[in-house]
Formats: sequence, C-alpha cells, structure tokens
Amino acid sequence: MDAPPTQHGFYAIHVFCCVNSRAPDHPRGDCARKGALDLQGHLKFRVKTLPSVGNVRINQAGCLDRCELGPLLVIYPEGVWYHYRTTADVDEILERHILKGERVERLLLANDAVHPPG
Amino acid sequence: MDAPPTQHGFYAIHVFCCVNSRAPDHPRGDCARKGALDLQGHLKFRVKTLPSVGNVRINQAGCLDRCELGPLLVIYPEGVWYHYRTTADVDEILERHILKGERVERLLLANDAVHPPG
Repeated sequence: MDAPPTQHGFYAIHVFCCVNSRAPDHPRGDCARKGALDLQGHLKFRVKTLPSVGNVRINQAGCLDRCELGPLLVIYPEGVWYHYRTTADVDEILERHILKGERVERLLLANDAVHPPG
Repeated sequence: MDAPPTQHGFYAIHVFCCVNSRAPDHPRGDCARKGALDLQGHLKFRVKTLPSVGNVRINQAGCLDRCELGPLLVIYPEGVWYHYRTTADVDEILERHILKGERVERLLLANDAVHPPG
C-alpha cells in the first residue's frame, strides 16, 4: 500500500474521531456509548504499526454535533465524514481512504445526512 | 463583521484546540497545564454568542503532538496552525482569521516550528 501523497499541511491526513460522552439519558446519545473510544484506539494503533502510512494523525475529538449519526470521524483537509460501527469499518476506511485515497461509499456521510448509512 | 464564505464541508471553518493533559512530570508538557481548556472554552463561548459567525465549529482535540508549542489549535480545511497564550490571542484569531479570513502573523505556527512565536 502506498503512502498518501504529500500535502502542505503539518499532517497530510488529519483524522478526528468523536469520542464524546454524555449522561446516559441524554436524548441525542453520544459516540462514546457506541464504542467510539475503542474504535478510535484501533485506528490509531493500526496507523502507528503500518510502516507505509505516511504523515497521518489520528486524534480524539469532542462532540462534532452529529451525534445521531455516530460513531463518526472527519478527515481533513478533505473534509470527508464517515460513520462506522465496527473495527472492520475502521479498517476499510484506513485501507481504502487513508492509504489509497479512495472513498468507502457505504460509510460516507453526506452533509445533509440525518441517519447513518446502511 | 462578515460571516466566513460558504465552503463545501459540513463546517465551513472547523477549529480543533488541543486540550490534552499528561502527568505533571512529563518532559513534553501538555496544553492543558498552559490553560488550554479555559482558552478553548472562551473561544467556543465567543463563537456561540456572535450572530454573524456563520458555520463555524470549535472543538476540543486530544494531543496534536506539537506539545512544546502549545497551547495550539488548527483550523481546517485550511490547515492553519496557531499558538496562543491569552484570551486576547484567542480573540484576535477569532476576529481576524475566523471572521475576516486574515492571518494573525504573530501567532502562526510554521510547519517546521519548534518554538512558539513571540
């Protein structure tokens, strides 16, 4: 797998995974209760152990305010948003989007999305 | 003050402020011990109370791995990094960069920066 192309930012690919948690009875829910911390940890670990991954950073983020769609992440500078549920989803985002510059259509979140795909 | 121009991302301007904390004796330090949480809170509050700010989101982030330069933030999709120390710094980033699309040269972090400016 090739490294991502060089870009001008400090990180070529900067991923922010929402890991926000709220009180259990909050009506909007949150990403943490849907496994976001473990899934972010999985993605971060995989990126750190891939020698060819290039200049990629995986970060935790506070509430991205699209809670009903979570767990979710946004990839900058592209501004591409994904929903994910499993480590297999995260692996596919890593292997196709981050490493190959493709899109994982089945997990993409449109700007007007109000329900998660799939 | 004008709102930022419309862009194609879910957020036109998406700001991530590092608020990471480490053990007090960690040699790299962290942004939290330098007031990052209060400064991020100040920025978030100001954005929420400005009617003309437009589609801007202020988020907390985990470690951005430029700890020696902190507190710091990155503004996407532009990928512009700033160092800041005070609420006056934060206000200047808001009023000049976020609202007017200018740059606050004295606080900008170059990609190769190893010391904070100023």
